[in-house]
Amino acid sequence: MDLKDKIRTIQDFPKKGIMFKDITPLLADSAAFKFAIQEFLARFKDKGITVVASAESRGFIFGSVVAYELGAAFVPMRKPGKLPFKKITQEFRTEYSTDAFEIHEDAIKKGDKVLIVDDLLATGGTAEAAARLVEKLGGKVSGIAFLIELSFLNGREKLGGYDLLSLIKYD
Amino acid sequence: MDLKDKIRTIQDFPKKGIMFKDITPLLADSAAFKFAIQEFLARFKDKGITVVASAESRGFIFGSVVAYELGAAFVPMRKPGKLPFKKITQEFRTEYSTDAFEIHEDAIKKGDKVLIVDDLLATGGTAEAAARLVEKLGGKVSGIAFLIELSFLNGREKLGGYDLLSLIKYD
Repeated sequence: MDLKDKIRTIQDFPKKGIMFKDITPLLADSAAFKFAIQEFLARFKDKGITVVASAESRGFIFGSVVAYELGAAFVPMRKPGKLPFKKITQEFRTEYSTDAFEIHEDAIKKGDKVLIVDDLLATGGTAEAAARLVEKLGGKVSGIAFLIELSFLNGREKLGGYDLLSLIKYD
Repeated sequence: MDLKDKIRTIQDFPKKGIMFKDITPLLADSAAFKFAIQEFLARFKDKGITVVASAESRGFIFGSVVAYELGAAFVPMRKPGKLPFKKITQEFRTEYSTDAFEIHEDAIKKGDKVLIVDDLLATGGTAEAAARLVEKLGGKVSGIAFLIELSFLNGREKLGGYDLLSLIKYD
């Protein structure tokens, strides 16, 4: 199955010059969604993953299913102010500003093998922040899986030390 | 399994007087997460559901897995400005303000049987808005499933016409 057929490109969203990758046609096609999940599982099912971590919001859609299928814990990483318990924060730069994600301190134990799942690898800032949060808590980042990689933004360079998977690439 | 044991109550979050229900311990326990999903499936698997719709962000965590297991489309409903394609909007009142959700116009076809999945039934405003969006697009709301119901807020009264399921109740 060519998953790229299920991605809709929207011109000038959210601002002029951006070719936004809309994943909702893929989510609407249960066979395509299942195919994507199976690709993630095929790559990481024998890696002893104990935790799947995803950043809000679209990351949750893929990460929760992968965690469910692996029998792993699911850990949400959220924008500041959303998580209610003791937590740590990691700032990161986006193209235009500084943003941050938080994670609960008890979400990851020393020695956990963590798979980070997200919908999109762009500049790599989000995934790098996610990996830092995992490592600050003593977890090992066993892999980072993306539905889409915008290869022309070179986000992969920021994530050089990690086992990366992306299912759809745009050069 | 008593799922209530997997919910952590956080006092005075996000503001004084609120007893926040933290679902992250449940998400961290893969057996508990699987049990919750199976309860949703047991109730709705024979209802001919074609679409599972959820509002961001926590709703995505449960809705995506239910859609995956049912072989149904997954439709995200999002805060204003997040969805890139043609869309419709539904405002709703929360305890302190007015908020809104949007849905893509092509997300639901006339005659779709839609299951709305969310983590929490509080005052019912969010679920009611979600149901309106589905119906505006010609879908039938075949059920609304919640992980948690705060029964003392009487949200159920706003949703009288629908087939409701909640797995954990707080009186």
